[in-house]
Amino acid sequence: MAEIIFTQDVNRKLKDILQSYIPKDIFVLTDNHSKDLCLPFFDKELILTNHFIEIEPGETHKSISSLEKVWNILSTQGAKRSSVLINIGGGMVTDLGGFAASCFKRGIHCINIPTTLLSQVDASVGGKTGVNFLGLKNEIGTFSIPDYVLIDTCFLKTLPRRQILSGFAEMLKHALLKGGEHLKAVMKFTPETISSTEFMQMLEESVEVKKKIVAEDPKEHGIRKALNFGHTVGHAIESYAIEKGIELYHGEAVAYGMIAELHLAVKKKGFNNEIYHQISQFINTLYTPYTSVTDGETLYKLMLHDKKNDNRGVNFTLLEAPGRISIDNYCSREEIIDTLQEIHFTI
Amino acid sequence: MAEIIFTQDVNRKLKDILQSYIPKDIFVLTDNHSKDLCLPFFDKELILTNHFIEIEPGETHKSISSLEKVWNILSTQGAKRSSVLINIGGGMVTDLGGFAASCFKRGIHCINIPTTLLSQVDASVGGKTGVNFLGLKNEIGTFSIPDYVLIDTCFLKTLPRRQILSGFAEMLKHALLKGGEHLKAVMKFTPETISSTEFMQMLEESVEVKKKIVAEDPKEHGIRKALNFGHTVGHAIESYAIEKGIELYHGEAVAYGMIAELHLAVKKKGFNNEIYHQISQFINTLYTPYTSVTDGETLYKLMLHDKKNDNRGVNFTLLEAPGRISIDNYCSREEIIDTLQEIHFTI
Repeated sequence: MAEIIFTQDVNRKLKDILQSYIPKDIFVLTDNHSKDLCLPFFDKELILTNHFIEIEPGETHKSISSLEKVWNILSTQGAKRSSVLINIGGGMVTDLGGFAASCFKRGIHCINIPTTLLSQVDASVGGKTGVNFLGLKNEIGTFSIPDYVLIDTCFLKTLPRRQILSGFAEMLKHALLKGGEHLKAVMKFTPETISSTEFMQMLEESVEVKKKIVAEDPKEHGIRKALNFGHTVGHAIESYAIEKGIELYHGEAVAYGMIAELHLAVKKKGFNNEIYHQISQFINTLYTPYTSVTDGETLYKLMLHDKKNDNRGVNFTLLEAPGRISIDNYCSREEIIDTLQEIHFTI
Repeated sequence: MAEIIFTQDVNRKLKDILQSYIPKDIFVLTDNHSKDLCLPFFDKELILTNHFIEIEPGETHKSISSLEKVWNILSTQGAKRSSVLINIGGGMVTDLGGFAASCFKRGIHCINIPTTLLSQVDASVGGKTGVNFLGLKNEIGTFSIPDYVLIDTCFLKTLPRRQILSGFAEMLKHALLKGGEHLKAVMKFTPETISSTEFMQMLEESVEVKKKIVAEDPKEHGIRKALNFGHTVGHAIESYAIEKGIELYHGEAVAYGMIAELHLAVKKKGFNNEIYHQISQFINTLYTPYTSVTDGETLYKLMLHDKKNDNRGVNFTLLEAPGRISIDNYCSREEIIDTLQEIHFTI
């Protein structure tokens, strides 16, 4: 498991850590967007004295071609197995950079500094790396653990409300998986009023939920599938949005995915209908209400690519109640399409 | 560790194994060349009833672009995490196919059926996968273990003498790493006179040498570097040949590399000069004598890309004597260039 460090002084921590690597072997990867917004938080020498790799931002550039660019620079600038790649940015940068590092010379060192809430709470933990392929999210990737993950909430100040909410969807997911007091606290969240101390504590608790699950099942043979709650429908919506050029954030797709999958859970696992409505309302108040995307058949077809599936059909993680997780629920085409129609996701 | 099965009935073994996979989830990867020469050894239903992926043969096609072709077919033909990719061919197919399988949806099942001596004795064991990048051998890859490796010497009948010798170089390497009676037996090898029973036994012993080293150190932090004996110089020669379009087999480059690295061992580790001359003569008799390639500086520069290097210079595995291995020997530019000149490898 990577060492996850929560800090309020990312520069000092990073400098301490870099003592253990060979100075001329340090490579920094970021995207244009994070370069402008996040690099100003770092001491100049850190960035200027090291090899620097810049890629284009956004899901469409989370591609084999960006990967080749990273490998090209690592190779031509003499990166060795002893080298370290520091990924500074959102999940796109840490996922792609983590994948690049895990395959270059069959694996070099890697440090992630996630700068969005989404990557801090989700991509930071668990060692999933990857790029998109043929419009499918993370179709190509590895399980590979970075040496360190540095989490500093200072970067969150650079984020617009919509991006904070995108990350918050994963926190809500963790809270639904855990249930109890943590869920109650998370359900009171409003980005405008929460104090930074409260938020930092909620973030640490949230990361802890994921860390515990991943430690039990690093390669997703069993309980780790719990973390896919909301993602079977969520990924299908997101894939569709990428394909059509619709701007939709990952967490937004997951938030809508959680509504759909809780609806399935009400029908199939006896999830309490009233709690479903509370959560559905909470999501629809916090996020732009999501009314229609495309027909259910199109979303269903996209779900058929989900990595958890086998020949038994589309595999869902459903909840019997908050904190009561049920993995490997196979739902039929009809059940899925009915749910999508009932919650008005499809036209 | 993969289950390595030596068999004289590859069809029966493969059919037994495939019982445990879902029939419509079976994909077969091969190259044009192995398709013509090796697929006739298999029962027709095995190949015809499964998804079939064909790539171009040869080191130049061990590339990201071939990899994308494989991923494309896996994705569009609905491969799942439960799917299995059967790689049938030489090291190029098993390395590339192993890499493709290890990253597709972050890892699907994989069975290797190596059909050249080189891949049976080397690529078959140890879980190194990869493709070439910017002219550098296996620059991009993973450590990933296939479910099974099936070794049947029937395929070797399809190979010309030169390819048998290419594989034999790795057997000689294993024998030098082991020493003793096994080395003596291997030093008596001639492709024309050896019986198939003797050869099968020698092959199993040879694979055993590698298997034991890999089991001790799967990710090459220490003793596994022993297996790179002959490869630091060998890979440089091979990279140069690829770049210039010179036809040179991997084992040929390794054979010449072993001469160079034994010469370094005589100078630096007190390796017995007489044994050096015996081995050097054995190699030069068996293989087309190798006189000159390029200048030492060019080869030295190619060695700087070797994955084992760090900032201390070019890292060699040297022998103090047959069976007495010394890893992590850093040689200077002068030592390397002098050796290459003394053994007439360079112009």
